[in-house]
Amino acid sequence: MVSALDLDLSPETVSSRRTPPRRLAILGATGSIGGSCAQVIAAAPGRFAVVSVAGGRDGAALARRAIELGADFAAIADPASYADLKAGLAGTGVEAAAGPEAVREAALREADLVVSAIVGAAGLEPTFAAVSAGRTVALANKETLVCAGAVIMETAARAGSLLLPLDSEHNALFQAIGSRDKDTIAVMTITASGGPFREWSAERIAAATPEQALAHPNWVMGPKVTIDSAGLMNKGLELIEAHFLFGVPPDRLDVVVHPQSIIHGFVTFADGSMIAGMASPDMRTPVAHCLAYPDRIASGVRSPDLAALGRLTFERADLERFPALGIAIDALRAGGGAPTALNAANEVAVAAFLDRRIGFSDIARLVDRTILAMSAAGELAPPSSVAQALAVHHMAGERTRGLLA
Amino acid sequence: MVSALDLDLSPETVSSRRTPPRRLAILGATGSIGGSCAQVIAAAPGRFAVVSVAGGRDGAALARRAIELGADFAAIADPASYADLKAGLAGTGVEAAAGPEAVREAALREADLVVSAIVGAAGLEPTFAAVSAGRTVALANKETLVCAGAVIMETAARAGSLLLPLDSEHNALFQAIGSRDKDTIAVMTITASGGPFREWSAERIAAATPEQALAHPNWVMGPKVTIDSAGLMNKGLELIEAHFLFGVPPDRLDVVVHPQSIIHGFVTFADGSMIAGMASPDMRTPVAHCLAYPDRIASGVRSPDLAALGRLTFERADLERFPALGIAIDALRAGGGAPTALNAANEVAVAAFLDRRIGFSDIARLVDRTILAMSAAGELAPPSSVAQALAVHHMAGERTRGLLA
Repeated sequence: MVSALDLDLSPETVSSRRTPPRRLAILGATGSIGGSCAQVIAAAPGRFAVVSVAGGRDGAALARRAIELGADFAAIADPASYADLKAGLAGTGVEAAAGPEAVREAALREADLVVSAIVGAAGLEPTFAAVSAGRTVALANKETLVCAGAVIMETAARAGSLLLPLDSEHNALFQAIGSRDKDTIAVMTITASGGPFREWSAERIAAATPEQALAHPNWVMGPKVTIDSAGLMNKGLELIEAHFLFGVPPDRLDVVVHPQSIIHGFVTFADGSMIAGMASPDMRTPVAHCLAYPDRIASGVRSPDLAALGRLTFERADLERFPALGIAIDALRAGGGAPTALNAANEVAVAAFLDRRIGFSDIARLVDRTILAMSAAGELAPPSSVAQALAVHHMAGERTRGLLA
Repeated sequence: MVSALDLDLSPETVSSRRTPPRRLAILGATGSIGGSCAQVIAAAPGRFAVVSVAGGRDGAALARRAIELGADFAAIADPASYADLKAGLAGTGVEAAAGPEAVREAALREADLVVSAIVGAAGLEPTFAAVSAGRTVALANKETLVCAGAVIMETAARAGSLLLPLDSEHNALFQAIGSRDKDTIAVMTITASGGPFREWSAERIAAATPEQALAHPNWVMGPKVTIDSAGLMNKGLELIEAHFLFGVPPDRLDVVVHPQSIIHGFVTFADGSMIAGMASPDMRTPVAHCLAYPDRIASGVRSPDLAALGRLTFERADLERFPALGIAIDALRAGGGAPTALNAANEVAVAAFLDRRIGFSDIARLVDRTILAMSAAGELAPPSSVAQALAVHHMAGERTRGLLA
């Protein structure tokens, strides 16, 4: 009968609570999460000040986003895009720079919160820089933790960096856990929408095209994440991320398929209690949660109306039709460099699928073969630095490219 | 794939963490909650020591429960049952006493936690005594807060008494809130199973017998609570309870019907996030949560297996067919003595229905008429003491009995 949006919780009312504005650095500003950030920030005038933005390759888009957000500094990773960025910012007074060092500078500008939303391993170094500097980091880049989870978490603890999970599942789990002692958690479960192939046969999945894999039923996301979702590799990466983020051992992590994507994750306790994090499948909710944390601001997203939805359904994940999930769970259990290799091999394989060089079921096959080959060659020692993690990452990428050729 | 019960969380493992045993006083030991307490305590040997038990009328049952729990002291409210209690305890060394003062003594024996599970207004005075003494109180007696919520909560704050909600809905909400600032909660929602008449027509409900009303689909509870559930009066009382317990204003409280009784309650925030408390419909879970709080112990209850359940369904509450809920919401909004009168009138009306003196739909009608009459007579001033609350309670009971005659 009552919805949060029917109450006096207009952005103005809610956002007037805190002054001065919270300073934000937004890495991955031109992507899907960057767009959600822009919408949430626009809906809370006066609450945030964007000190820096960073993007990958689209200089013109980054320039537009920097202007939209009133950023002081914009860094594009690809030096070839510098001219576009510079042209787009001409006469605005926004500083422009290019290359990995510029992205690192964007991560280290004096900010109260760094949003880490660069897709893939490219996000690792700037995120590590922000964590090392003790910044509060809202982490949407799951590859950072999958590639170098132990290093990142140890560094965060040492530097006093608070990591706020921006992935919808981990954000929901973070909210469900609250300030509870994590040792009391018996099981932590992540839900999976099941993606576009949830009801497809193994044969039909094997023949899936990039267009079919990109047609996600619930979420609007970037192409890499959407392909990962279609094969449930995404859930495997998220289990690994949860393991590092929350310190929960592999045998206490679980996945359940929930096609409506309303419950995103839940924790189970010894007495049978479960606490679930729920939200409509719209990234503006976890974005607003992280940007305002520990306050709350309006996100523009209506909370789920369970009576209107009528039902939430659940089923077990099918590891036969979705072998990528099983391969990821094996990598999580193996530990060491296996998650790093998994992530790198997957990046290469997904790109090859999007380029129509391999079929959909080849993604999991390539990842599996890469890990097996590296394991046999003794190349999966636990990385103890970002440099070592990136070395394993590059080695795995090379191995996968070798298998592709 | 993983369940809490598959892990090494046997009662022995979990309960060995804390010494010395937590001392318990259990008021309402012979009822449904008392039985759940006995099961949870038996499953955690060495963790609890029962200092006192109290019951209403069944002296022989209270004696058995006292012996089962190894209690030091047993108090029966009805002096006529003293002989049965005494006989049942002969030769055991367990102290026996009778009358309201004895129940009060049971509430005030030196204990770390007082379980308040006496049904109806009879539980108010001993609960108030425990709260006034600054005890931690696990509150299953919802009438205590409905009858004298403001007084109880102010007294608890002054005396430093921690109230742990033992009702499944409020326990779930308590867990969902965690240590969060309650001011950030936009909406708090309680779920209703819908009871045995969920799909019945208004005509059929009006003609329902006590046997039909007592056939609750999910919960095994005492007769008063079961009848309240059948007409959704229970949810009205629970909204009032939530209002006092959590300090949430009436316009931010909501009900949704959820026949499976897996999600018991949830809180909604301005950003669209919702946090839900879930558990199988078995009182041993909230009992174990309260008895061990803030630790966790095994309850013997398996947490819900969502994939096995397959679906959770939700629908709006129908205030046409279930007018008791609307009457209770009106009383909540009116405040003052209205909730007190509602509760008292309902106790009398439910007893009359169980005695086959009135029809099912007469319960809500009698409650409504009682409140209207008292409101017109200026008898609904806010009670500022337990004595005043009980005065309103007795006056309302008399008015209802007058309407019955």
